[in-house]
Amino acid sequence: MASISHLKRKAYALRKLSVMATSEAGSGHPTSCLSAADIVAALFFYAMKFDPADPTNPSNDRFILSKGHAAPVLYAAWKELGALSEHELMQLRKFDSPLEGHPVPRFVYNEAATGSLGCGLSVGLGMALSSRLKNIPFYTYVLLGDSEMTEGSVWEAIELAPYYKATNLIAIVDMNRLGQTTETIDDHDPEKHAKRWQGFGWRTICIDGHNMQEIVNALDQAREPQEKPVVIIARTFKGYGLEGIEDAEGYHGRAVPKEQLSDVLKKLEERFKEDAVEEEVIPLVTYIPVPRPKIDFKQPLCPYTQQTKLATRKAFGESMALYGEPLKNLISLDAEVKNSTFAQTFESRFPERFIQCFIAEQNMIGMAIGLETRGFVPVCSTFASFISRAHDQIRMAAINRTPLRIAGSHAGVSIGQDGPSQMGLEDIAMMRALPKSIVLYPSDAVSTYHLLYRALQYQDGISYLRLTRADTEGIYGPDTEFTVGGLHVLKQSNDDKVCIITAGITLHEALKAHKELEKQGIAVSVVDLYSIKPLDKERLILEAKKTGKVITVEDHYLEGGLGEAVCYALRNEAITLEVLAVNKVSRSGTPEELIAYHGIDSKALSKKVLELVD
Amino acid sequence: MASISHLKRKAYALRKLSVMATSEAGSGHPTSCLSAADIVAALFFYAMKFDPADPTNPSNDRFILSKGHAAPVLYAAWKELGALSEHELMQLRKFDSPLEGHPVPRFVYNEAATGSLGCGLSVGLGMALSSRLKNIPFYTYVLLGDSEMTEGSVWEAIELAPYYKATNLIAIVDMNRLGQTTETIDDHDPEKHAKRWQGFGWRTICIDGHNMQEIVNALDQAREPQEKPVVIIARTFKGYGLEGIEDAEGYHGRAVPKEQLSDVLKKLEERFKEDAVEEEVIPLVTYIPVPRPKIDFKQPLCPYTQQTKLATRKAFGESMALYGEPLKNLISLDAEVKNSTFAQTFESRFPERFIQCFIAEQNMIGMAIGLETRGFVPVCSTFASFISRAHDQIRMAAINRTPLRIAGSHAGVSIGQDGPSQMGLEDIAMMRALPKSIVLYPSDAVSTYHLLYRALQYQDGISYLRLTRADTEGIYGPDTEFTVGGLHVLKQSNDDKVCIITAGITLHEALKAHKELEKQGIAVSVVDLYSIKPLDKERLILEAKKTGKVITVEDHYLEGGLGEAVCYALRNEAITLEVLAVNKVSRSGTPEELIAYHGIDSKALSKKVLELVD
Repeated sequence: MASISHLKRKAYALRKLSVMATSEAGSGHPTSCLSAADIVAALFFYAMKFDPADPTNPSNDRFILSKGHAAPVLYAAWKELGALSEHELMQLRKFDSPLEGHPVPRFVYNEAATGSLGCGLSVGLGMALSSRLKNIPFYTYVLLGDSEMTEGSVWEAIELAPYYKATNLIAIVDMNRLGQTTETIDDHDPEKHAKRWQGFGWRTICIDGHNMQEIVNALDQAREPQEKPVVIIARTFKGYGLEGIEDAEGYHGRAVPKEQLSDVLKKLEERFKEDAVEEEVIPLVTYIPVPRPKIDFKQPLCPYTQQTKLATRKAFGESMALYGEPLKNLISLDAEVKNSTFAQTFESRFPERFIQCFIAEQNMIGMAIGLETRGFVPVCSTFASFISRAHDQIRMAAINRTPLRIAGSHAGVSIGQDGPSQMGLEDIAMMRALPKSIVLYPSDAVSTYHLLYRALQYQDGISYLRLTRADTEGIYGPDTEFTVGGLHVLKQSNDDKVCIITAGITLHEALKAHKELEKQGIAVSVVDLYSIKPLDKERLILEAKKTGKVITVEDHYLEGGLGEAVCYALRNEAITLEVLAVNKVSRSGTPEELIAYHGIDSKALSKKVLELVD
Repeated sequence: MASISHLKRKAYALRKLSVMATSEAGSGHPTSCLSAADIVAALFFYAMKFDPADPTNPSNDRFILSKGHAAPVLYAAWKELGALSEHELMQLRKFDSPLEGHPVPRFVYNEAATGSLGCGLSVGLGMALSSRLKNIPFYTYVLLGDSEMTEGSVWEAIELAPYYKATNLIAIVDMNRLGQTTETIDDHDPEKHAKRWQGFGWRTICIDGHNMQEIVNALDQAREPQEKPVVIIARTFKGYGLEGIEDAEGYHGRAVPKEQLSDVLKKLEERFKEDAVEEEVIPLVTYIPVPRPKIDFKQPLCPYTQQTKLATRKAFGESMALYGEPLKNLISLDAEVKNSTFAQTFESRFPERFIQCFIAEQNMIGMAIGLETRGFVPVCSTFASFISRAHDQIRMAAINRTPLRIAGSHAGVSIGQDGPSQMGLEDIAMMRALPKSIVLYPSDAVSTYHLLYRALQYQDGISYLRLTRADTEGIYGPDTEFTVGGLHVLKQSNDDKVCIITAGITLHEALKAHKELEKQGIAVSVVDLYSIKPLDKERLILEAKKTGKVITVEDHYLEGGLGEAVCYALRNEAITLEVLAVNKVSRSGTPEELIAYHGIDSKALSKKVLELVD
């Protein structure tokens, strides 16, 4: 067991290295590192059971630095573990270094990208739950700052952890009193802050976060068998150890100027005389991360036919249940709308792989990131409109390179009477604007079945499946092929005057328009652009050129939607393009009234076609 | 004073009307209305001091239905106040009726659009704070459901209210035990739930929410002079009063089928025999809402010149401080980054009109909605990246037709070393995809000054001002005109081969490219599209046609950004268009390294120009 003096020496090393690295970088948050240095030293060199040489070992304890701006103290810990040389550490924040300003997966020892505050506890909770689900006992430690405790997302995780008795989740609050510009909302009183956690059913331990013995004792206590998750609230001082800076306002995110560094380090050494002893570090063998395994499972036979009339949200739930059999790591997360998204169909089949997250979308996405890291294939589902609630967490998932699957039901004005608050009308824009994301929009049961399969296989980023409330007619036969980046031409003739490009619910309007126009002797082609991102640019151009006139139609706001995506793809072609999309605040009404009101129904399409052929 | 029996009769009326209206509509949430009916009756016919005939009266007490799906009980209350006829109430959820599935401002007596859960308390807190700021004493009552208590945003408001001693904010939790599909996380125990609020410094009163005397007493107690905000936690039953449905699972969002209605109403009458007495209602004079007043103030002289080298975020803070003088209702909301956004410049001048919201962006936006409703001109500022945290609240603000001003600093990869978590790269996409929003992107101090002025004047929807971290050179003289929907052509000649369209930080790269290319004898025009939405389509086409070749460049993801907006505007013109934008996850590095890495710097531009003219 590590001695207290050893831990204090490590804490000193972390302090010194954090100050040096940020000074060398000319930016960063050394004072936020210094308040946490004792805690991080105790975690990495005492409490956590893990093999630093084998970060993927499933039995390792896990560590999430929720206060991501303290990244240098995390890097310093790995330097002291032998994963980095001092030279490498001094490359902090440089373009070629994986040691970014806030931790990202390019630093292969890091467990989750952080830097948007208030996200870490959710990720940790996901990891903690994975331990029970996989029956691999380990602890997940999450280090939070006191400033980020005002983020509601933190309280979402705090609310859910006791419900699931996540006793292997250990939260630690680095209560250093000072935020970026002012004192935190909490004074500097761990006991007062503890009452909040207690109200949610947590066990709390309040300590002096700079007393190594107290930290060690608290960590021991935290691991005692218990019924409740536990939080250690550590009273600390920002910039602890730096003369004139410790506990002073105005030093957030300020590196020590290089010309003052040697003086500052000298004073630091004087302050921690006994601890300022360098200990030998044995370098680790360079760790080469293993890429995510391919998700390869045999697709069961498609249960739907062209005759199946079913809402895509229902087909989603049923397909989830079917894929749950061959894909043993598939797990479903619901934000208390499982009878709307039909996640309940999966739940009834695999209750042990269903997590009720209640109405807390941010925590749902955060937990999914944690579960994915520990080997699950999580699918988060809720109303498309409410996915906007977790936009920041989804953005962070993209930065974390997490292949997150998200299904948004009740997309568009076509949901009808419930009104605009329940209508997802910005989800395509939101999900397209993520690096490496894919956006898939099925129109019937068969396409839902196959596109969900593609989303499950997609490991390079976030996949989004857009779902419709109403039952829709079958369009495709069961064996139709659907690919990421594909499209289908559903109607086509030699006489086509206009090409209609659409997907999802409005595909049915396009087919209706096709029929209406046919009666009037006007032929149009109809393209199902079910893969909105990526899209098949070459094929789109080919189809568009056949008529030279294109109309897109979608149940989504114009900006960032299918129409603009097509417009971008066709930008350098001599093609007339009209975009029908939602352009104003919607309201309650029947689906038919609303798609007419917004000019995205078959009549509006037919009218636009007639204008173009005129 | 209203008698208990009168209130019970009103509660009965609300019950009956809620059941009838949803049954007539064939959808809606009657059971969620019934748990709240007694509380709503006590509020509207006992506790609240307001003039129903004059909803804009600034001294009126305010009511927010945070559990928006209980809209029919709100409409029923206004029917009993005389604002609606029974016939009008029975138009619930119909296309032409303002009585939508969830309350919106089309129902002119409604205080805030709700329906995305967990948003109401923030709006109420904003209203409560406006009371103190305007020195007009009134109470704001917010009715929450217990299901929405899992939304972190609620806890953001709960955390902030005691900090600002918002003792005129009275929260009421309708604790009916059942969510949409399952029991809530909280059991059915008000005392247990109360501990959570107490931990945050609230006074709590637990009652039986169907005992009118207890409700009345609690409301009296709540209004006693106090130091803390107060919450009444009312234990209720979902569907209270409906035989076989009361407190039963499976009845969320289910209207009584029409053929069962008379039977159900008969039983309801039997159950509440004593209360089933119709009281006379005197119809109110039809209320015609007053449109929002124009914001008309004399712009002070621009303090900047073409020589001013200043970050647009700094110019934003200084301009806010200048406009604060003539615009007395201007109020600044900060999410604890005031020294990054320079909201602190406004604060130091007008501390009484600055609200520190701490790191809780959702609540910040919600409060701004509330403040705007009560006559303020709120400007919310934080990092552009973290605005994504409040996407849902911003979406709801658009549905509420709130002219919210949002400023996002640190946009783009050009922030440098802090890394991708801090880079706003999806903000243009997010803010464009809102009905009636405007998106403005200044490039220097002068344009920031003028565009903020335009944003402050814009009353038709949300305005977004995108700000840059780094100091940028002056481009414009102080008297240059900037308009919503305008653009400036900065470089132009008869020999232009390509037109570069851009805005903000990349405008400076475009000007550099212009200079570099000039040396090589290649002329290009440069357009500053500072108004990305709306954009001046006619002028863009005119400028683009002059060369027939356009390159857009932006420090934002490609999807939904400036490039796609331009692409849409130019879609039917014979123009070659190339879009330079961010296409992959960014990293730490110097600003110069990063804009080069993403191919959005002057070199990338010059290269692309050479390709096009080749």
